[in-house]
Amino acid sequence: MTAAATSVEGIVRAAGGHVPSLLAQVEQRLVALAAGHGPVLAHHAGHTIAAGGKRLRPLLVILAAGPCAAGRAELIAAAAAVELIHSATLVHDDVLDSASLRRGVPTVWAQGGRAPAVATGDLLFSRAFSELTAAGSLEAVQALSRATSALAEGELLQRQDAWNPAVPVDRYLLRCELKTARLFEASCQLGALAARAPAGHVAALGAFGRGIGVAFQLLDDVLDVAGPAALTGKHRGTDLLDGTVTLPLIIARERDAPLAALDLRTITTADAAEALCDRIAATGALEASRERALEIVEAATAQLAPLALEPGQREALSLVAGSVADRQA
Amino acid sequence: MTAAATSVEGIVRAAGGHVPSLLAQVEQRLVALAAGHGPVLAHHAGHTIAAGGKRLRPLLVILAAGPCAAGRAELIAAAAAVELIHSATLVHDDVLDSASLRRGVPTVWAQGGRAPAVATGDLLFSRAFSELTAAGSLEAVQALSRATSALAEGELLQRQDAWNPAVPVDRYLLRCELKTARLFEASCQLGALAARAPAGHVAALGAFGRGIGVAFQLLDDVLDVAGPAALTGKHRGTDLLDGTVTLPLIIARERDAPLAALDLRTITTADAAEALCDRIAATGALEASRERALEIVEAATAQLAPLALEPGQREALSLVAGSVADRQA
Repeated sequence: MTAAATSVEGIVRAAGGHVPSLLAQVEQRLVALAAGHGPVLAHHAGHTIAAGGKRLRPLLVILAAGPCAAGRAELIAAAAAVELIHSATLVHDDVLDSASLRRGVPTVWAQGGRAPAVATGDLLFSRAFSELTAAGSLEAVQALSRATSALAEGELLQRQDAWNPAVPVDRYLLRCELKTARLFEASCQLGALAARAPAGHVAALGAFGRGIGVAFQLLDDVLDVAGPAALTGKHRGTDLLDGTVTLPLIIARERDAPLAALDLRTITTADAAEALCDRIAATGALEASRERALEIVEAATAQLAPLALEPGQREALSLVAGSVADRQA
Repeated sequence: MTAAATSVEGIVRAAGGHVPSLLAQVEQRLVALAAGHGPVLAHHAGHTIAAGGKRLRPLLVILAAGPCAAGRAELIAAAAAVELIHSATLVHDDVLDSASLRRGVPTVWAQGGRAPAVATGDLLFSRAFSELTAAGSLEAVQALSRATSALAEGELLQRQDAWNPAVPVDRYLLRCELKTARLFEASCQLGALAARAPAGHVAALGAFGRGIGVAFQLLDDVLDVAGPAALTGKHRGTDLLDGTVTLPLIIARERDAPLAALDLRTITTADAAEALCDRIAATGALEASRERALEIVEAATAQLAPLALEPGQREALSLVAGSVADRQA
């Protein structure tokens, strides 16, 4: 894989064919969905959509569907729906975290306060289901609603486990699955459903999506400890300051006995968080975490092996898997 | 109509037949939906469901469906789904209003803070779509998603119009429609869809639901000004203190010129709010608002006239309309 292909833009260029034009259609659809619902919605929802993002989930929908499904309205609807759900969760997360900036622009919470932000999230959420229902099948709506239930459950689990460094690895991985991977899974399932793929094919692509979603979250958590801030755009150790216990800390506690006794609540400044990040890194926990992520990506990619995919589809999905495994920001 | 039949319990007794047992099934289903998703969800979602409520929306689903649809799983699913959506919006509203009590018990926000409350609302929301999708038709899911988009839009509209006493009546009525009536409309549509009613029948029952929903919200706003607190369970004028401009104030401003010049932001205490309520009442605005609500209920009930309904169905729906028109709390 070339370095350029490890970014979503690089994958889109490498995939070529129908992919760039479909993503452009998704973008138009997202703008239309945000703009078409009165001035109130238009302002906050439009702002959220316009703020952008990698559009990784719509890309998964399109790649999982393959070139033969390219002309189907339900494909664009599904790709727009997963991005709307993702945007809705970000808007709500920004309320929960009182976050003023996201993707370099002021959040809805910062612009309008928590009421418009909660309502905007609810609205994007509803629009996702409207959009998918208008074009998709009951099976597709079911897949999306399972994912959104999981997202909320994952958010609750994270809050419940906050400040508890003794969280077992399995429970940490369950959290990654719920809060991130299930929407990746649904994205792949929705693409396969739009391509009218058989049930086994839908399930295998879903399992692929779920795996790379877990790895995506795990490596996000590694980057929070590893930095550097210049690359990630945020201070190292923000998870630790929030009491969010992730795999690097879980592993480091097994390797550094005094660290296991540390009360996370005593880490209250950016400097203290940075020092803790260095201490976690010194145990080799970052490499161990990255290895775990790579194993998960490999297992996910293996799900694709037995599938009869369309020309270029396997390569493009593998590029996404590689991009997740290599993620640097 | 007897006085007893103006409460939901009274309507359920008067409707008799299949209605009480169906509502009991809905209740069981709600408890199962709250309990079946791990300890995190179980706590907050279960708490929310157990806190109760009038279950007016599930009742509308059941009554709109009529006795012949009584055995269908999709009917219970639809009734549970609309109540889950209603509960989700209450949980989110409590976050927005920092409300500590609802139906006499501590809110999720008060128990767990805003993060669990936002996530619990999201989860109840998702469960509603899962539940409806598992049993219903795409048309039913579409009806529900239109309603939930409207709920969020209504919430945004209310915040946007806050503190602006010059809101036109039409815009106020649009707010009532978006934040309340569309879910009433969807409840009736879902009932009719579960009964496999023809499109015209679904639309007419939906229009009935929408009308009584607008009146329900309008009279809720009247009660906020009229009280008495002993009956409504909350101080008079809480809407005014929140900057929420409702029909009684809009009408009173037309009749009392000095009142039209009042800056709502100067009303900051419960006593001042109560005095403003008295002043609004003195203009006759409460009676005028109630008359407007009655006209809307009558127009809604007229939607039922041409429909071929099942035995007892028209009477039961009329009881609901009467109960809305007569609402005292």
